[in-house]
Parts: sequence; C-alpha cells; structure tokens
Amino acid sequence: MPIEVLISAPEAVAAEYIPHLERAFETEELEIALIRDPEAAGGAEYVIWHPEGPVTDYAGFPKLRAVLSLWAGVERALGNPTLTAPLCRMVDPSLTQGMIEYVTGHVLRYHLGMDAHILGQDGVWRNEVVPPLARDRRVGILGLGALGGDVALALGDLGFQVEGWSRRPREESRIPAHSGEEGLEALLARTEILISLLPGTAATENLLNRRTLAMLPRGAFLINPGRGGVVNDQALIDALDEGQLAHATLDVFRVEPLPPEHPFWRHPRITVTPHVGAETRADTASETIALNIRRDQDGEALLYRVDRAQGY
Amino acid sequence: MPIEVLISAPEAVAAEYIPHLERAFETEELEIALIRDPEAAGGAEYVIWHPEGPVTDYAGFPKLRAVLSLWAGVERALGNPTLTAPLCRMVDPSLTQGMIEYVTGHVLRYHLGMDAHILGQDGVWRNEVVPPLARDRRVGILGLGALGGDVALALGDLGFQVEGWSRRPREESRIPAHSGEEGLEALLARTEILISLLPGTAATENLLNRRTLAMLPRGAFLINPGRGGVVNDQALIDALDEGQLAHATLDVFRVEPLPPEHPFWRHPRITVTPHVGAETRADTASETIALNIRRDQDGEALLYRVDRAQGY
Repeated sequence: MPIEVLISAPEAVAAEYIPHLERAFETEELEIALIRDPEAAGGAEYVIWHPEGPVTDYAGFPKLRAVLSLWAGVERALGNPTLTAPLCRMVDPSLTQGMIEYVTGHVLRYHLGMDAHILGQDGVWRNEVVPPLARDRRVGILGLGALGGDVALALGDLGFQVEGWSRRPREESRIPAHSGEEGLEALLARTEILISLLPGTAATENLLNRRTLAMLPRGAFLINPGRGGVVNDQALIDALDEGQLAHATLDVFRVEPLPPEHPFWRHPRITVTPHVGAETRADTASETIALNIRRDQDGEALLYRVDRAQGY
Repeated sequence: MPIEVLISAPEAVAAEYIPHLERAFETEELEIALIRDPEAAGGAEYVIWHPEGPVTDYAGFPKLRAVLSLWAGVERALGNPTLTAPLCRMVDPSLTQGMIEYVTGHVLRYHLGMDAHILGQDGVWRNEVVPPLARDRRVGILGLGALGGDVALALGDLGFQVEGWSRRPREESRIPAHSGEEGLEALLARTEILISLLPGTAATENLLNRRTLAMLPRGAFLINPGRGGVVNDQALIDALDEGQLAHATLDVFRVEPLPPEHPFWRHPRITVTPHVGAETRADTASETIALNIRRDQDGEALLYRVDRAQGY
C-alpha cells in the first residue's frame, strides 16, 4: 500500500513541485500516493506544507505523522492550534547557496561603495579614497544556524573579518561567536556591515530597535534577508535619518508583498528587494522532503524538526 | 657599501612608500641607500618606477641592474628607448585581493540584477522571476595571468561556471582554458558575464571589437578592470545601443582620468569606476620590491620580469 502524502500548496506551486517530488520519492525508493485534494486525503501520513496552501484544520488527518514545510520560516504553521504533529522546517542546500550569493553580493556592494558609482555618473573622476580590503572590514552576522553559519564561512573565504551572534551559546561554531545580551553589544560595537539571519520568533521580535541599533558604529550598514519582524521599522528609519546607519537593504518585511505606500520604498537610504534572497528550489527541496519521509518510515529521527518552545 | 636605489615617483607616492620600503629592506636584510633626487643617483643599481615619476632618461645610470615598477601595467616604461635594463612588473598580493573583491562584487551585482533594485524603488513588488544560482551562470575571463587565475578561482569557489581564455595556450591552468582565435570564439559564445583582465599590448589592442562582441550571447555583461585599450570604445557603445550587450562596468580607459565629456559617462548602460579595481598597497608592494632586489643581489632570477617581445 502506498504511503499517502498530501501537498497543501497553491496550484502553481503544487504543479511545479509534483514532478520533482515524484522523482525524489523514486530515488528514495518510496511508494507514495501524492494527493492534491485535502478532501481525499483522510489517510495522509504526511502533509507537505506551504503557508498559502488550502489546509487550515489538521484534525481531519488521524494518521498524520509529520508536516513537512516547503518554507524555511514556519511561523504561520506554529500559529495553528490543530497542527500538533511533528513539524519540520525546509533546509534546502539551494536556499543556502542563494542566500550566500545574495548576502555576499550586497556585502561587496557596501564594501566597494558601488551605489556611488551606479547612481553618480556625473563625469567627476574620484579616486583619492582607496577602499579598504575585505581583511580590514568587519562583518557581523546575527543568527548562526544552517544559513548564518554557511554565509559566514563564504564571507570569511573572501577575506572579511566575520563574527557572529546567536541568542543562546552554540556548542560549536566555525567563526568567532557571541551570545546573550552582552554578546550582542560586543558584536554590534565592532560591526561595520550587519546581516540578520535570525528566525522570526517572540524572542527575536524587534531585536534590532533604537537601543541596539545605537550600539553599532556610526555609519554602519544593515542587510536583512532573515525575518522582517526582527527589525523595528520606525527605529530603522530614525537611525537612517540620524546618520547612525548609512544604508539598509531589506528583503523581508512584516507584511509581504511590502505595500506600495510603505515608507521603506521611498526612503533614499533603503533598498527594498522582494524576498529574493533565498528561494527554495523545487528540485533540491523535494529531495529534502523525500529524505525525511524515508527516514521517518525507517524509524530514524526527522531532520530539521521544529522545537515549538523555541519557535524554530 | 649600501646598494643605491632611486625611487622615481611623484612626491606624495614617494613619501607614502619610503617607510614601507625601509621596513621591507630591513626584513630582507638589505643595506640600501634610498635616493629621491635623480641628480644624486648616478650610482643607482635599481630604479623604483612610477609612470608619473621624474626620470625619463635612464642613460645616466651606468650601474643600473633593474627597473622595478610600482604598477602592474608597464606600457609607458616599455615606450622609453633609454630603458634597456631588465624591467619587472608589480605583482602585489593586495592588488590581486582588491581585484578579486572588485570583480566578485560586480559579477554578483549583474548576477543578482541589483541595479533594478538600486535604481527602481517604485513600490512594485516583482518576485516572479527567481534568479538562477551561480552554478547556472557562465562567467568568462580573458587573461589567465596572476590576476585572472586568482579571480577565476574565487568566482569558482562561489559556484560560478568559470572558463578562461589567454592569447597563447597555457601549460597549466586551474580552470577550463581556451586560447587562440578559435578558443576566443568558443569562450565568448558561452559567456554571460565577461571579464577582461588582459594586459595592454599591441596584440590585445581592440581585441573586444564589433566582430568579437557579436560572438557573445545577446544580453551579455562586460566588466573591464584590465586595460582600456582592449575594448574598442565605439564598438562597445554600439553593442550596448543595439542590445547585444546589456551593460558594461569599466574601470580602465584609453585616457585617465576619463574626460568629463566622454560618452561613457552619459551612457545609461555603462558604469564608469575611476580605476579603483586594483590599487597597489604600499606595504605589500614594498615587500615585492625588496624581495626582487634581494634575489638579484643573491644571483637569483628576477621575479615578474617583462618579456619585451610580448609587452608584459
């Protein structure tokens, strides 16, 4: 008997994923009945979850063994009281690679002062100031999970002085790492280019606020491809207006799409990018899903399982 | 008796270099008399050369053993008929690192489509098109010397599909390498982002012209931090106007500073940067100079010696 798996995602997403999922199931030698209609999925052992999918009530799946997210961020699934089965985040190697490319690109953009060239083609040859090399540029990363750790290593390979911070101390870290409230101040005080890859949880909400942004050296840069709620919108605008921050590039927002009337769009020292920092790719994400189902069927622990107390 | 070394450079450059040179000479255990006045340097065994230095006639240095350039590019020294002593290019590890940062930054800028975000903050959320990952982006590098080879490796480390081309076949190459006229066509035909790090010689003059630019796939990008004469200015403007090229970032020009009236400044699909791609740094460049003097004094071959027939 095949294992019943429901994919709860918008039509277009489901259509994109199904061929990749079927290939990945075959690779893992799983016999799966992939179901698109929630009404016909009463025997589902797994739900593949997308925040805009049709399923909102999980009480109708008595055999449910796990909910497997297509998204790295699972805040919206955690808010659902009927979802009591184990929940797994998406950790997609392509997503990590996309994040490395996005962050490295924007760090180099700030490091090299590219905007002055892109926006200022005025015929004046200004080459008096030699930019420092990466080895003289201090980058700070908030969040040292799968994404933050790999981004830190890539920036370190390019020569940047990278240090990181996580809320709780990490047992092992591949870069100099701070933690806790004191560690946050130590990290921010040394950071010229700050990257937030923190998850969106109650504990990280508004972590970057007027008080903490003031801990950065004057004229620092912010890149936020993590979660929008980590930054207090008004505190960010104030810090930019006062010159405490030189510029910010934001890829994530409290409401997405960012409404056209939001002041971020009009601010001369903010670049809005439309949540392109890390896209899950159907081919590699399907491999993660299939691997987890195979592990669970074989009695192995699920990978990337969410700790509900921590929220990620 | 100390070895006499003349530094022929503008006052400000000489003042910056002298402390670094003295430290580097000490490290190499060389006893050097560093002379700034060409009139007082009749016994000089070495001239440290800058294109804007005061010495134009080398006939007055009968003991001259070598001319050591502070610049990677030595075209102007080669044009001097009185300069018959061995001539060495500058190969500075900081210059290589600076070039890696400049090229990686601008490659990622094109790869991620950053300009659309930096220039187009219009309140419209456009996230339908997922940019490809670096592994699906083909980068081509013209020139596989010390700079080109290291830049290629750094881009390869980030995941880009990098191939290169040099005029003559190279005995060893760390990336897939093409050479000769046929190899040039093969490289250009596959290249979405083209980087020129070719030296400025008679053989590379106008190598990127109407005919060769047409070999690129339509909509390719060009980054030229090598030498300005490699690109035919009008052919580049035509290729951009016709859409054959999507955009170009130029750091080097036939005349520098690029005159304010030059059409490159005004072209909407050209970014001019003021020769900042690779700056020689006084500390590391001084180590290269001192090392070469020590080698020559010990009877070892000079490093980075220019082959006058090839022009670099």
